[in-house]
Amino acid sequence: MCEASAYLITDGEPELIMEAVDVAIPTEEGELKLINIFGEQRFIKGAIESLSLVDHKIFIREAAGAV
Amino acid sequence: MCEASAYLITDGEPELIMEAVDVAIPTEEGELKLINIFGEQRFIKGAIESLSLVDHKIFIREAAGAV
Repeated sequence: MCEASAYLITDGEPELIMEAVDVAIPTEEGELKLINIFGEQRFIKGAIESLSLVDHKIFIREAAGAV
Repeated sequence: MCEASAYLITDGEPELIMEAVDVAIPTEEGELKLINIFGEQRFIKGAIESLSLVDHKIFIREAAGAV
């Protein structure tokens, strides 16, 4: 399988927010919807910044002004 | 291996621009640098929009105003 772990980049160290992510897609509300291989969903105020797929990592940059 | 194919979204159908992508990372110049598992690099005026990793697909949205 080729899922990856999603990390949120805020001010400090990247924080693991979801494992086994399959799909990441922006919503009309400006959020990023993550779906893992178990069908679980999570909505993040941010956008995909970078990928390292062989390492199974997705880095998401927190949106400016996100709470 | 968990590399993916990168597709560029412009006006029409997504266009395959690189296969076997490992790393995608933004540059200081505002481009997106793609590196595949063979070490080949490509710079794209755009940003990662969405992912479908089980399908091995990365979708990149062309930057507004890109030539």
